[in-house]
This record gives sequence, C-alpha cells and structure tokens, in this order.
Amino acid sequence: MSGSTVSGRLVVVGLGPGPAAQLTGEAAAALAAASDLFGYGPYLARLTLRADQTAHASDNREELARAKAALALAAAGRQVAVVSGGDPGVFAMAAAVCEALEAGPEAWRRLDVAVLPGVTAMLAVAARCGAPLGHDFCAISLSDNLKPWPTVERRLGVAAEAGFALALYNPVSRARPWQLGRAFEVLRAVLPPETTVIFGRAAGREDERIAVVSLDEARPGMADMATCVIVGSPATRTVARGALPPLVYTPRSAEPAT
Amino acid sequence: MSGSTVSGRLVVVGLGPGPAAQLTGEAAAALAAASDLFGYGPYLARLTLRADQTAHASDNREELARAKAALALAAAGRQVAVVSGGDPGVFAMAAAVCEALEAGPEAWRRLDVAVLPGVTAMLAVAARCGAPLGHDFCAISLSDNLKPWPTVERRLGVAAEAGFALALYNPVSRARPWQLGRAFEVLRAVLPPETTVIFGRAAGREDERIAVVSLDEARPGMADMATCVIVGSPATRTVARGALPPLVYTPRSAEPAT
Repeated sequence: MSGSTVSGRLVVVGLGPGPAAQLTGEAAAALAAASDLFGYGPYLARLTLRADQTAHASDNREELARAKAALALAAAGRQVAVVSGGDPGVFAMAAAVCEALEAGPEAWRRLDVAVLPGVTAMLAVAARCGAPLGHDFCAISLSDNLKPWPTVERRLGVAAEAGFALALYNPVSRARPWQLGRAFEVLRAVLPPETTVIFGRAAGREDERIAVVSLDEARPGMADMATCVIVGSPATRTVARGALPPLVYTPRSAEPAT
Repeated sequence: MSGSTVSGRLVVVGLGPGPAAQLTGEAAAALAAASDLFGYGPYLARLTLRADQTAHASDNREELARAKAALALAAAGRQVAVVSGGDPGVFAMAAAVCEALEAGPEAWRRLDVAVLPGVTAMLAVAARCGAPLGHDFCAISLSDNLKPWPTVERRLGVAAEAGFALALYNPVSRARPWQLGRAFEVLRAVLPPETTVIFGRAAGREDERIAVVSLDEARPGMADMATCVIVGSPATRTVARGALPPLVYTPRSAEPAT
C-alpha cells in the first residue's frame, strides 16, 4: 500500500489497549510523523501532541464522517493519522476508512494509505488471565447498530456450540442496555453453567478490573463500555494459585496435558 | 499475576509478526530483563542477546517440554522469558505454559508468571490489506496434532455459514500436507466462489508475500508454514486502486457504505 501519486498520506494507527508500553515502535513513529490526528476524543486524549500537530476529536458514533474528513485532508496533502484503541482492524477505524475511500472521489484511491496493527483488547485481557483464547476462538461485536440482532444471536449460538471460545466486543453502552444479558441467555442454552466468563476492563491500565466468574454467575452489570468479555469453551480450565489470581486457559487440545 | 513468593519469574513474551518495529515496549523490556530465554529456534534467532543471557532453543513440536523446562528454571530462581511469534495467547506458548504449570509441582503455582501480548499474525496480515477482519471473525488452527480433524471441518463449516470471516493458522507443514486443500473444499461448499482469500506470509518482514485471490482460485501450494490465510465473508469487498495493491475490507455492516 505504498507508492503514492499525491503527497498526502493517511495512516490508521492502533494505540493498543492503553498503556504506552503496549504501543508498537512503528505506531509511535507514525504518531510523531503526523500533522493531523483524527479519533474518538478519549483516544486522542491519551496522546501528548506537539504544538505543530492538530487534533481532530469526534464522537464514537461518527466513524464514517471521521474517516471522510481524514481522507479529504490527506488528499489535500497533509500527513494524517487516524487513531484507534487496540487494533484498527478489529471493530475499529480501518474498515470505516476503507468504506469511505470506496464511496469517495476517485482521487482517494491514489492516496498512500497504510494500517499499522496493534494489540487488540481481547489479546490484552487474555494475557492478564493466562490463555483463555489458547485454542480456536471467535470475536463478535454485540453492537446491533450496523447488523441485525438476530444475526448476533445466531453467531453466538453456533460458535459456542462448535466449541469456540468467544471474545465479545462492544458488550454494552447507553444505546445498548439489554444485548449482553440476552447474549448470556443464548450462551446458557448451549454451554455448561460452569463455563468460565472473564470481564476484562481497561486491561493493563491503572483502572484495570478483571473478574473471572462462571456463566451462571455472569451479569450484564459486570461490564461497561471499556470491557471486553471473554467466554471460554467447555474445555477452558481454571488453575487456582492460592493468594495469586487464578490462571485461566483453553488447552491446545481437547485432552488435559499429561 | 504478581506477588510472587519465590524469587524466580517467568514471562511469556509475544514478539509480534517479526519486524522489531512491531514489538511493544513492554515486550522489549521483558526480553532485556531475562537471564534465560526459551523458544523455537527461529524466534530466538531474531533476538540479539547479551553475553550474560542464555538461549534455550527447541523444536516447534516440543512446546510442552519447553514450558516445563522454563518453569523449572524459574522455580530455581532465574528470570525466564518464553518467546512466541505474534501473540503468545493465540495458538502459541501461553497455553502450553499454563498446561505445564497445572500438571507440575505445587510450587510452580506460587511462581510469578506473566503473559505480555503482541500483534498476532492475522492482525498483521489484515493490516497489510486493509480491514478483511473488520467485522465478526474466527481464528482456527488447521493443525490436527492436538484435535480431531472432523472438529476442524465442523468449525470451518459453521463459521463460514454464519458469516464470520476466518483466519486460518498453521495451514500447512511437512506433517500436514493435505489439510488446507480439504479446508478449501469445505469452504467452497458453503461460500460463493468469488469470496476473497488472502495468503499472508511473513507480514511486515523483508520476505513478505501477500496474495489476494478468490476462493475458486485458492490452492494449498500458495501457503507455507509462515503463512496466515484469511478467508473473507460474502460481505468482504475489494477496492481496486490502479497501480496500488487493492484494499480488502469487511464492512462494519451488512450494507455497503453510503
């Protein structure tokens, strides 16, 4: 995705889960090289910008408008970075930029556009607990903004039934109060009540909160907008460690290790 | 996972896809702090170790033995790092360490064990192409070393049918010559022939090779051990860009952007 024929550039940058130590070197370099940075306000607020850099903050339901504005500025010759929490390719800005580019003026297709990956929330939460995504798994967004809710239920059901572990993104918001509770109902119909559920909030940050409960005990109120919920498979195991937090992992095989 | 009662430490570190620029800061710091580094030979070969650091290389089918040896050395008071390519929680060493810890001596449960996440292969490959994993997706290992092959086929079939994009890990090896071809057959039975397939080899490295083809055209010989295969959903789109490589993305919604 190099070889631009215009002088502007657009880079979609993954900020990782939050702590600066979980940013990649190339992402840090791209942020430093940008003249203009677009993103959801709280993500931009994590960054320390120089006086010669301009922040363009917008709301978290304005992804497509943000992508269009960023592309227009890059087409005008600016060095633009669009920032995403986690990885920009997972329920984040990379798809919105591609959508806006496809629907936009022909000239946008000649722009130098690059996506720089990052550590997405499910990987950060999983790492704090052991290896709950250690075998086949799915990532599902519970947002029904952009897809019909019956599609979400169907995907949850078939994935759980087939033995995938699940990472649930966008579990709850003011506009989405009941979806997570309904998701747990769907999962309880196909998974044993003792299946492990992890509520991972702000993994690695100062306000981190990780809770490990059973599917039976899982309640929607245990999640907020900053939470990634991981649901184990029936093979997922918990290793008690006395005063230390338990380790949760999904074995690489269907059989326990020997 | 802190608060050790013995002086040794074991850190499972994700090296990311390969380029040093895609390593996180905390991973780099953990590698520098280690006295002993365990891993698959080619991963250890990427690192520049100091004279006071010891490398313990092993083969890629010896994960559990490697994990046991690493835990034993940490229990003896050493600062041990177990390295994984990509993210250690995705078909990699974090689960093997948890398995070995659970099956091992009681004292291992009091060890200070931490997992540091990284950019996993599917995210690195996706970023090079646009956003092919921009909506719900699954990660499936094609290795039938540790799970029965019919389970793999079932998961491929239900996930494709339910509209997930798919990331296929461990698509091929000397011991696994026919599995990827059979996986394509399973997918052709449920997906349109024009569905996008990406063969992403060594994303971001000097020997990177990315090929975008249709499911119809996909052949097992297009992958090797270092390849992550991404199969789009029927909603996945390709945006031609003249002399630039096409952008591939899965829209955030079932409907094209307006």
